[in-house]
Amino acid sequence: MSPALILIDLQLAIDDPSWGRRNNLGAEANVGLLLDHWRHGNGPIVHVRHDSREPNSKYPPGQPLHAFKPGTAPLPGESVLSKTTCSAFLSTDLAERVAGRSLVIAGVITNSSVESTVRSAGDLGFSVTLAHDACFTFGKRDWFGVERSADQVHGMTLANLHGEYCRVLTTSEILCAVETYSPSSPSLP
Amino acid sequence: MSPALILIDLQLAIDDPSWGRRNNLGAEANVGLLLDHWRHGNGPIVHVRHDSREPNSKYPPGQPLHAFKPGTAPLPGESVLSKTTCSAFLSTDLAERVAGRSLVIAGVITNSSVESTVRSAGDLGFSVTLAHDACFTFGKRDWFGVERSADQVHGMTLANLHGEYCRVLTTSEILCAVETYSPSSPSLP
Repeated sequence: MSPALILIDLQLAIDDPSWGRRNNLGAEANVGLLLDHWRHGNGPIVHVRHDSREPNSKYPPGQPLHAFKPGTAPLPGESVLSKTTCSAFLSTDLAERVAGRSLVIAGVITNSSVESTVRSAGDLGFSVTLAHDACFTFGKRDWFGVERSADQVHGMTLANLHGEYCRVLTTSEILCAVETYSPSSPSLP
Repeated sequence: MSPALILIDLQLAIDDPSWGRRNNLGAEANVGLLLDHWRHGNGPIVHVRHDSREPNSKYPPGQPLHAFKPGTAPLPGESVLSKTTCSAFLSTDLAERVAGRSLVIAGVITNSSVESTVRSAGDLGFSVTLAHDACFTFGKRDWFGVERSADQVHGMTLANLHGEYCRVLTTSEILCAVETYSPSSPSLP
């Protein structure tokens, strides 16, 4: 079976200025490249959306910022999956929807819902590829009060995930790999 | 119900020199303080053990390094739970064993099995406290090749988890909190 593309939480709320300074300004363009490839009949696409139950969140359904970002939004007929947890596997039927496929994951934010989803996917036995330049995050202080840039936060998550829960590749590397994908193998080359 | 203490992967393999330089040299002593408190009738203890299926791992059952570390090993009659995943929830019945309780988590390594377990626990709706000085990890390079010390790796994980998946406290803070624990509240104070 062809690989599934899973996009995490690409909603308007992620552009709210309260998040601070982000990295990977080209992430949406890279998601667009992935979408363009998958939309040409190269496997299922699942657009995962965060439906927050928390009163102070920017993500409750019905709020304007809950909508998908234009440019990477689902087309009519594409699968939309609502989650209430950070991992897209722990509050949905995602594992059943993509059973038997390898997964390509992208979206936001690298060190929260993307990381939790990749960790779950790896633990559940999926062969996972993370498109690191199609994800982004924001700077934050570490536990000891040291200010870490968005790239530093992003880079620590990628190092924690690569080789343990997934492999980390660029969008270009993934597109080259899926071009040569063979249905006889369950994973991407 | 009283809180459950969950200890992650405190096996001899974690002392193998191939891991490199660790942080929190007092972590095992702090786990000992938590164990001492819980062993005086203050809630269930679950010793989680990693049973690797990977041929090159240090953790396959039957190997000498698979055994629990002395000093923090289970006493006869205490629960031992074997996992094959990083998260202690994704290959076990842990969620059922501790249903309705708040959780105190400690063990190794901070940025892999401990972090995956805390992320799952938070997503599954548990009230989770991570005893940060009863965990440890090792230095590693981030994705961009920057060498990060064990404390830096540890500190980034704690910042990612605190307030989103759990609260992060010291062992002393946890012991003070459980001393004043009231069964009428499902969470620690």
